[in-house]
Amino acid sequence: MVDLHDHNPQHQVVIVGGGFGGLYAAKSLAKANVNVTLIDKRNFHLFQPLLYQVATGALSPADISSPLRSVLSKSKNTKVLLGEVNDIDTNAQQVILSGEVVPYDTLILATGAKHSYFGKDNWEEFAPGLKTVEDAIAMRRRIFMAFEAAEKETDAAKRRAWLTFVIVGGGPTGVELAGAIAELATKTLKEDFRNIDTSEAQILLLEGMDRILPPFAPELSQEAESSLTQLGVNVQTKTLVTNIADDIVTVKQGDDVKQIAAKTVLWAAGVKASAMGKVLTERTGVESDRAGRVIVEPDLSIKGYPNIFVVGDLANFAHQNNKPLPGVAPVAMQEGEYVAKLIQKRLKGETLPQFNYVDRGSLAMIGQHAAVVDLGFIKLTGFLAWFVWLFIHIYFLIEFDNKLVVMIQWLWSYFTRNRGARLITGKETIPSVPIESNGHYQPVKTRQPINV
Amino acid sequence: MVDLHDHNPQHQVVIVGGGFGGLYAAKSLAKANVNVTLIDKRNFHLFQPLLYQVATGALSPADISSPLRSVLSKSKNTKVLLGEVNDIDTNAQQVILSGEVVPYDTLILATGAKHSYFGKDNWEEFAPGLKTVEDAIAMRRRIFMAFEAAEKETDAAKRRAWLTFVIVGGGPTGVELAGAIAELATKTLKEDFRNIDTSEAQILLLEGMDRILPPFAPELSQEAESSLTQLGVNVQTKTLVTNIADDIVTVKQGDDVKQIAAKTVLWAAGVKASAMGKVLTERTGVESDRAGRVIVEPDLSIKGYPNIFVVGDLANFAHQNNKPLPGVAPVAMQEGEYVAKLIQKRLKGETLPQFNYVDRGSLAMIGQHAAVVDLGFIKLTGFLAWFVWLFIHIYFLIEFDNKLVVMIQWLWSYFTRNRGARLITGKETIPSVPIESNGHYQPVKTRQPINV
Repeated sequence: MVDLHDHNPQHQVVIVGGGFGGLYAAKSLAKANVNVTLIDKRNFHLFQPLLYQVATGALSPADISSPLRSVLSKSKNTKVLLGEVNDIDTNAQQVILSGEVVPYDTLILATGAKHSYFGKDNWEEFAPGLKTVEDAIAMRRRIFMAFEAAEKETDAAKRRAWLTFVIVGGGPTGVELAGAIAELATKTLKEDFRNIDTSEAQILLLEGMDRILPPFAPELSQEAESSLTQLGVNVQTKTLVTNIADDIVTVKQGDDVKQIAAKTVLWAAGVKASAMGKVLTERTGVESDRAGRVIVEPDLSIKGYPNIFVVGDLANFAHQNNKPLPGVAPVAMQEGEYVAKLIQKRLKGETLPQFNYVDRGSLAMIGQHAAVVDLGFIKLTGFLAWFVWLFIHIYFLIEFDNKLVVMIQWLWSYFTRNRGARLITGKETIPSVPIESNGHYQPVKTRQPINV
Repeated sequence: MVDLHDHNPQHQVVIVGGGFGGLYAAKSLAKANVNVTLIDKRNFHLFQPLLYQVATGALSPADISSPLRSVLSKSKNTKVLLGEVNDIDTNAQQVILSGEVVPYDTLILATGAKHSYFGKDNWEEFAPGLKTVEDAIAMRRRIFMAFEAAEKETDAAKRRAWLTFVIVGGGPTGVELAGAIAELATKTLKEDFRNIDTSEAQILLLEGMDRILPPFAPELSQEAESSLTQLGVNVQTKTLVTNIADDIVTVKQGDDVKQIAAKTVLWAAGVKASAMGKVLTERTGVESDRAGRVIVEPDLSIKGYPNIFVVGDLANFAHQNNKPLPGVAPVAMQEGEYVAKLIQKRLKGETLPQFNYVDRGSLAMIGQHAAVVDLGFIKLTGFLAWFVWLFIHIYFLIEFDNKLVVMIQWLWSYFTRNRGARLITGKETIPSVPIESNGHYQPVKTRQPINV
């Protein structure tokens, strides 16, 4: 029987969001003397750092997902609720879903971030981002459909536009996408087409700052750029995107304005807080930053509400180094674990020192046998970095599920350069190339729908 | 340059459809002195016999798919064309796609079959079938969403309807689906829910004939039925479905009429020929059977058109045993290979004896460690049959792609009973259970859309 209104003498912890922050909070509370309800609108935790591999046909969505119920099935104090939280009632201490309310004693909000187009929301249609499984499937469809359309295209300029891939944003996701698409074009697909040479594909990686991977040490940015260039990626730094319209990306480099004809534009630039940020600021008066992230106290609670915590990408924690912690998985995981520990201390009448993020380093995959790893005390590039990247991803993937075999599959496809998961699925699965009156083939202006 | 109108002195073979029939024809022509164009509306070959494992969360779509371009990349005489054939012009000898035409000297049609609801097309909305990747993802969403909705449901009768799964059709697909859902309910999901006991789920397998798996020997049908019953499946033979409406399946057993309240109804009963059958009968006057399958000559060509062949589920070949060959993969594969061989013989001015199907047996998986295998000279059940089933499926899966690692993954999930691919994806990912005025939870009439 579902009756969350039941009076239960035990402390009720409600966690909203089953990403890294929420899931690690829930896992850390598994043996605590509290009742936990984890609410997510999806029935699975998604290992987002590998989502680009789904978008480029190396892995399947299920390979990087774990059913939340299964991950938490042994936590007998924990309920998983599939649903979307629309509002919070801080007086009644309950979260409000469509059709049900769930009361809390302590609330942990971990709903993460979504893409941001810096106010240019109309760009999304032309330049989809990569946050969900559906995003990845749609991106995969676009990428592989572009090669199919190029194969059918007879006009050289149009074929070139089909074979031009623009990735906006030179952070880890942009770098990883660019590297993977370059490997697709020059290796995986090389023998597969008869009318086009896929290795002639242009892959442009655009970054506004003066170097890619700005969180890394400058020498690693440099190394990443030369590795990408070697793979065939055209890296353009100090490049601002000023417009994205149907098939044309307009960029500004210093005083120069350029137009790039590209049928496939992928967005890896900005993120903003999920809608829960706004709900929270309205209901509690807490401040948020320009990206909508909630300003949190040193213990990750919000001002005036010691029993409401915000962790992960939704939080702006700036009590360390005076700048917000980055929106990466390790920050969310440590924050989730900290809050779980703090709740248990509080129930014993104890306390904890303020949250302190331990930065174990940053890493980004560039391509087969190449990555950059910045562990602070040591910087790695090339094959060794690639190996460390693999090891760390395997370690965190298998921690909460039996992903060992999946990782073997992934290593296999990595070594053989085979990307078997390059299915074009969803609604539009054939490129539209209607015949013209002169009998020549003519591509239509097709934009694949973003939804799966 | 795509210019299929080019005059080419070489013999042009056009194959429509990249299933088992079309793909095996193409592979068999890889070294022949002909030009081959394989046209499919999907960019991948689908290993349909394992589609039920996608629908039940054991495998991902990519695990049972191979990109057609990749499978045929080494066949330098072969082009793959992503497109849908709408019509055939037998005078001009060309197939007509949206926006292009492709001329042929020899045409092989292998477009397969789709579900048939015996004229009750309105049943499809309530009882989806399993032919495509999108079908499997939609079925997976329905199955796992039903457990989620049951977990939220407070009304006992409604919860029971959410936990009732009706599979219509006791052929191999129906048997395999029923066995897999029973394993899900009694094993995989057993620890995952807090309000429901998933092992109380009712799984009904309905079959119109007097036994399930009618193509098998009667003792194997009997064995399959008792294995299914042991797994918790309620097998009902001599049971005709007379209506499927929202949440109610009406069946007739002899003179008895019963109604079954079930939120999840899956169709594994009938198939009919794909639309190409009708096009062909209209354009050539060739006869077709009640299921729309094209009546073929002893050499798999059609009457009056020795250069047009039909293979696989689209063909009705009855020159052996006086009854049509069944719509299974081995028939399609052998037919595709036969036609490929015949074309090569003809080009040398030679001929071939009529097509003769070599039946190597039938097999169906029931559940973990149980299957039935009928090899003619030997009949197997239980663990040994299960092992043979595995071996044969692995053999055919890896024949055209490096699926070894995938199969390890599959074995792994089979042994651990873990079904990691149970993502609810697509448009509706949360069960709708709106609050009633009395504050109780009330499920709405939700029907998940069939499309992904």
